[in-house]
Amino acid sequence: MISVGVNGFGAIGKRVAWAVSQQNDMRLIGVAKTSPDANARKAVGMGYDMFCADKNFDFAASQKRFADFGIKAKPLPEIFGDIDIIVDTSPGKVGAINKEKIYKGQKFHMIFEGGEKADIGMSFNARANYDSAVGKESLRVVSCNTTGIIRVLKPLTEIHKLSEVFVILARRAADPKEDGRGPINSYVPTSLPSHHAPDVQTIMPGVDIVSFGGKVPMTAMHQHAMIVETEDKPDSGTVTDKLAKETRLALVGNYRGKPPSTSVIIEMARDLDIVPRNDIMNIVLLKDTIKTKGNKIMLMYYVHQESDAVPENIDAIRASLSAAEQGESMSKTDKTLKLDIMKKKLEKYFP
Amino acid sequence: MISVGVNGFGAIGKRVAWAVSQQNDMRLIGVAKTSPDANARKAVGMGYDMFCADKNFDFAASQKRFADFGIKAKPLPEIFGDIDIIVDTSPGKVGAINKEKIYKGQKFHMIFEGGEKADIGMSFNARANYDSAVGKESLRVVSCNTTGIIRVLKPLTEIHKLSEVFVILARRAADPKEDGRGPINSYVPTSLPSHHAPDVQTIMPGVDIVSFGGKVPMTAMHQHAMIVETEDKPDSGTVTDKLAKETRLALVGNYRGKPPSTSVIIEMARDLDIVPRNDIMNIVLLKDTIKTKGNKIMLMYYVHQESDAVPENIDAIRASLSAAEQGESMSKTDKTLKLDIMKKKLEKYFP
Repeated sequence: MISVGVNGFGAIGKRVAWAVSQQNDMRLIGVAKTSPDANARKAVGMGYDMFCADKNFDFAASQKRFADFGIKAKPLPEIFGDIDIIVDTSPGKVGAINKEKIYKGQKFHMIFEGGEKADIGMSFNARANYDSAVGKESLRVVSCNTTGIIRVLKPLTEIHKLSEVFVILARRAADPKEDGRGPINSYVPTSLPSHHAPDVQTIMPGVDIVSFGGKVPMTAMHQHAMIVETEDKPDSGTVTDKLAKETRLALVGNYRGKPPSTSVIIEMARDLDIVPRNDIMNIVLLKDTIKTKGNKIMLMYYVHQESDAVPENIDAIRASLSAAEQGESMSKTDKTLKLDIMKKKLEKYFP
Repeated sequence: MISVGVNGFGAIGKRVAWAVSQQNDMRLIGVAKTSPDANARKAVGMGYDMFCADKNFDFAASQKRFADFGIKAKPLPEIFGDIDIIVDTSPGKVGAINKEKIYKGQKFHMIFEGGEKADIGMSFNARANYDSAVGKESLRVVSCNTTGIIRVLKPLTEIHKLSEVFVILARRAADPKEDGRGPINSYVPTSLPSHHAPDVQTIMPGVDIVSFGGKVPMTAMHQHAMIVETEDKPDSGTVTDKLAKETRLALVGNYRGKPPSTSVIIEMARDLDIVPRNDIMNIVLLKDTIKTKGNKIMLMYYVHQESDAVPENIDAIRASLSAAEQGESMSKTDKTLKLDIMKKKLEKYFP
């Protein structure tokens, strides 16, 4: 049984805590937060042991904050002796500080998220480099967008030699809960080219890839348009068949004669109620956008930014602790987090 | 002096009426609308002679509607004897009905907009095919997005042989005034591939081009990401220099270290107040997105959907009536509609 601690209880932390709780080979020892608030109450209400963190590592002050708020929380370091691994879901770059200041010298392994720089640990994607991650003390689960790109590209490398890849992203502006972020009514270019392509290369170094795009006023999912140049003449049927075999991709057909919008997809997830929060951990590939032209493949897909990297976290835990082989871990994760059911339902209702 | 009638007084019609009024070789005889409303009052208030149209061609009924609303309007056919040309800015496909039912057999020439099918007249872009349009009785000014693509591509064909072009569009959901259109908070794919590429080919038949993308919740401008494959090795400096010579493109640099958003661009146009309604008839090319990689050029630009085709309408009028040569007409249009000043200011403030 793997004992897991989760530091941070935001968009990723709360989902990873839930995902860990669904595994029969894992036990959630507790979750840590810096601020007592309604979400802390919710965590306690869900039966999670609460630990208090502090950005200046003043755990006594943090404990008092929680106590004043009516929540009994233990200082974060008290979890250290009881865990095999910590999943650090702190805001970007804070994980690196935690690693340096409080994790160093401890016996547990560490999983970080994509907001950290690539040097914090080996960049991880279950489909692409699980085997190399086995036994590694520190892993970094790459971001939602990078995870999406890799899940599409990795299978393609198995049927084609890719010469060049372009990804154009229409990024969601904010997560649904983030009421203070923009843009409203604007197209805001990302830095150009964007960080996603180099991030893909931390996992697939052989891929010649450029990414660019911008943020647009929507919160449900990211959208990617991809152009993949191959060294031969690809065929859209073969490409579709190959991608359709991937559990972590769901290939959806048209809705009322057109590729479905992100709203249509999310509403289906809400209705289906397969996992909490209308999460869709599968990348949603718009089947009818898969086209080939000469030596190029074009396609479009959606990335549910809040949840698609969650199964990767579960696999990263097993890989880091040498607890399972790739196929066993991924299949277990897909079953327990119901990516298999989600895929089946989405593909059935949008044939 | 060219006598012009404008049928329709929506986003395009009101701008074309204004643009005609800025020309010293044109006279606006009147504008026509089907519905009496505040916009009709505004047109009268601006001194335009009002003509009444009707979708069932019941002009007496329309005249009564206008009279009941307090506006004296003459039946549309009464303008026919007084004009050399009509610019039909009716909603998509209505122009074709007008052409068949009421324009046929009349002596005036006709300009239609991009919402009409390509067979209504020769597709027109001043930069790309003015000479072929000279003397043609019926022209079709292609849509805002198609105009944007052509303004960027045509100069590129003069320095490179293009082998393949991809345009990925993030389309504005609605114009600012359209309070009933969506999406809100969603990515809605266009039909795939989109109609823009074939539309470009009505004017540049030799260009191998694919376009796709979707609508996003914004109203200010369209955004395009373009990947142009050439038969040689392009150089970003040469590409930038070539495009910088185009008056109908404005090449803007960074704003606070990043390519400016559509909001930043539109706010600048509001402040500058060069032409009414914060219109930007130039295509706004983000200079720092112009990159080359091997045989490909990448770049990003914004299209002000409400106004970028307006100068093309003015040039189309002159071409159709053999009233000026290409260079003379375009230069006159750029000066009178102040595309030259807009370019200069935008490039000065975003160097």
